Amino acid sequence: MKSQQNYAPVTDEVVLSLKKIVNENCIIYNDTEKIEPYSHDEVQAKEYAHHPEVVVMPRSAREIAEIVKLANTRKIPITPRGAGSGLSGGAVPLYGGIVLSMERMNRILEIDLENMVAVVEPGVITNDLNNKVKQEGLFFAGYPMSLETCFIGGNVAENAGGGRAMKYGVTGRYVIGLEIILPTGEIVQYGGKRMKDATGYNMVQMMIGSEGTLGIFSKITLKLLPLPKARIDMLVLFPDVYAALQVTPRITKDLRLIPAGVEFMDRLSLEITCDYLGIREQYANSEAILLIEMDGNSREQVLEECLEIDGICQECGSLETFIAEGPKDQEKIWNVRKHVGEAYNAIGEIMSAEDIVVPPASIVKVIPRLQDLSEKYGVLLPSFGHVGDGNLHVNIIKKPSDDLQRCMSILPMILEELYLLTKELGGTISGEHGIGHKRSKYLPLIMGEAEISAMKRIKSALDPLYILNPGKIFD
Amino acid sequence: MKSQQNYAPVTDEVVLSLKKIVNENCIIYNDTEKIEPYSHDEVQAKEYAHHPEVVVMPRSAREIAEIVKLANTRKIPITPRGAGSGLSGGAVPLYGGIVLSMERMNRILEIDLENMVAVVEPGVITNDLNNKVKQEGLFFAGYPMSLETCFIGGNVAENAGGGRAMKYGVTGRYVIGLEIILPTGEIVQYGGKRMKDATGYNMVQMMIGSEGTLGIFSKITLKLLPLPKARIDMLVLFPDVYAALQVTPRITKDLRLIPAGVEFMDRLSLEITCDYLGIREQYANSEAILLIEMDGNSREQVLEECLEIDGICQECGSLETFIAEGPKDQEKIWNVRKHVGEAYNAIGEIMSAEDIVVPPASIVKVIPRLQDLSEKYGVLLPSFGHVGDGNLHVNIIKKPSDDLQRCMSILPMILEELYLLTKELGGTISGEHGIGHKRSKYLPLIMGEAEISAMKRIKSALDPLYILNPGKIFD
Repeated sequence: MKSQQNYAPVTDEVVLSLKKIVNENCIIYNDTEKIEPYSHDEVQAKEYAHHPEVVVMPRSAREIAEIVKLANTRKIPITPRGAGSGLSGGAVPLYGGIVLSMERMNRILEIDLENMVAVVEPGVITNDLNNKVKQEGLFFAGYPMSLETCFIGGNVAENAGGGRAMKYGVTGRYVIGLEIILPTGEIVQYGGKRMKDATGYNMVQMMIGSEGTLGIFSKITLKLLPLPKARIDMLVLFPDVYAALQVTPRITKDLRLIPAGVEFMDRLSLEITCDYLGIREQYANSEAILLIEMDGNSREQVLEECLEIDGICQECGSLETFIAEGPKDQEKIWNVRKHVGEAYNAIGEIMSAEDIVVPPASIVKVIPRLQDLSEKYGVLLPSFGHVGDGNLHVNIIKKPSDDLQRCMSILPMILEELYLLTKELGGTISGEHGIGHKRSKYLPLIMGEAEISAMKRIKSALDPLYILNPGKIFD
Repeated sequence: MKSQQNYAPVTDEVVLSLKKIVNENCIIYNDTEKIEPYSHDEVQAKEYAHHPEVVVMPRSAREIAEIVKLANTRKIPITPRGAGSGLSGGAVPLYGGIVLSMERMNRILEIDLENMVAVVEPGVITNDLNNKVKQEGLFFAGYPMSLETCFIGGNVAENAGGGRAMKYGVTGRYVIGLEIILPTGEIVQYGGKRMKDATGYNMVQMMIGSEGTLGIFSKITLKLLPLPKARIDMLVLFPDVYAALQVTPRITKDLRLIPAGVEFMDRLSLEITCDYLGIREQYANSEAILLIEMDGNSREQVLEECLEIDGICQECGSLETFIAEGPKDQEKIWNVRKHVGEAYNAIGEIMSAEDIVVPPASIVKVIPRLQDLSEKYGVLLPSFGHVGDGNLHVNIIKKPSDDLQRCMSILPMILEELYLLTKELGGTISGEHGIGHKRSKYLPLIMGEAEISAMKRIKSALDPLYILNPGKIFD
């Protein structure tokens, strides 16, 4: 728990002032049970949780602006919160104060078909938007795997990625306009429905991934894409992880193709997820699988590309390939991959869920280093993730027989070695989950003083009193 | 000419210090004739030109850092410069001082086929990179129309766009790593060959389009794409501009297609360019043309899409369509469009070359307003450009019989009305050329005080002495 020495407490009088800004039923105060869900995100370790003093659910930019101004006057910290599905402690109010939950700002304001653009409030669930635009033959490409629960505002705040980022990029590529409440309370508009903008600094992109430390989004303009007419998925089984991880750079180099996604799971990830789902192991003899998604507007072309990729997989030593066309078959081969996160959480022995990213062709070099770490520290280091774009989720797990306290005491050393090897390979410690609170103390390990100092100077310039989400990104 | 009251002059002694940093033959000093080319970019009006006191051509990040540190110590302004092909006065040293020309940092450092990435110095000519990667079946998608002369560093500084931005986006989408010399002289690295990065603020995107005011690039990492296997271009003639400008929103809304580009030229632009090229008018009876570029990996699919689009063109009233496959035919139909900028410059009656951008579906609403302006002020307002992404180059031209002085005196009023109507339609005053010096005084017209203030606070935070490219973006 952090000291609150620099911040003022939320008193009854402050809450009275908040009630003048928002409806009484938009405030949770003096109710530990109702406040508890706002004290953590999806990070499992309890040490990263912290209760807010009050939760406020604004309904408009104006209300947010008033709350932010009040917080500046009183020096009370504000932590904006989406669905709480984050994995870096980004939405946790480390210094107490106000949690600003965007759950009631959940309207899809406009689907503009002529400009292929959607305008949404930050509390819209990502899949709600995708389901709505699907009826129009469109999709929002920059979504993360948690799309059934996560809010678009949170995706923007963390610059979330997902299973299709290899071809389509991450959330940030699709955000073309933002209405923002600055840390000092001004409501500003940057970008809009225009597709290009060379007018001053790119404040839209600066805000994306700033983890709620530079501004609060009240309106988000998103570029949509036409839904590809054809999609074919392949499940490919491999005898070992090395064989599987050679595939992506060969698709890139030999075929000059960019799949929508190449997802990877190792044996332990498969076993744990199948157990969790209560389904029979389907991956006999394979030590790793790839899920490869190809799309385009011509089925023949997509199928031809799939066959070319399968040829590469076979050259790399694949055991078997299942081709899935149509939602039902695709659902089936994606089922295990989609539940891997939940499955790991359910076993309760996870020490840390990591999110390293390296240049895609270097991902194969990570594996022997993970094996070394596993042996050195006596922990398990299974992995899965978006290997098509070099983003590997490494889970640090204690062996069932081992002592939790011993394991937690060596966790910082394991993380340090993991992060340093990522840096050595030209990578970084978060591809899509963010730094938040969880990784802030490791930032200086992989980023130089001058690099961090420039970021901090921007933070201070926009948020001189450090009101907005303090303690995140920087330690 | 601006006063240099806040900056120190470049004395012989300063030049001696510079000679300790770079080779003597990398400095131009006391040579008005050789310095003159560094006093302007492609903006025609003389009022936007200004001579530097010295030109320095560094060869490394280290040299740049030393020069920047010297400039901070002495309080001498530095203006980074690419090929000088800019159209907003961005590379003009408004307060004299040092022009830092990147012409000798022109190495393509690496083409990494397994990661589909190129690493270049800022002085590489855009087309040199494209020619080199073409041999590998790849291309750098984010290039502007001036690709035969412009430097990649300049493209990044202005976040340049181009004829294929509708599908592929602008330069910034492809920049994944930057080595930057900060205004205070530190050499920093942000991003790299990784495809995702959620590690702190997006400093890479913050720097892109910052017009040389926040940092100097010494190394640029670019994501490449596979060269599409099929490309078909269409030249479509229309009886009037309205018919032509209805096409893009209908392609978007009715067909759910995104062409690589939809380029537009009106009658006067066609006439002036054909005259300039000395070729016979090929566009009889048409008041406007569209050039529509479609690409993909399946020729059949691309051709089918072209026919669908041609159907839309016909419904909008098109007169005739020419389909071009293969470089020779494509070259032929693009020839006039590619030379329109030069042609306008050659006639010498251009008062201002503008770069407005609106939501693509609103571009048709711009035209009657241009006609009103033309009548009200007695000038010609022909237009051409990337209408697929809403980016229209409006040229303000005096009538041959008119008096230049009268025309220049009313130019600010015309610009003000043009910019206000752009804002009214949800657009902005520059889609790809930048604000630079030329549009800085109009920024407050289309952007609020709070929006500008946040940008200025970032500038001050990173460049406290205003050493780097002063007078640009902000007046």
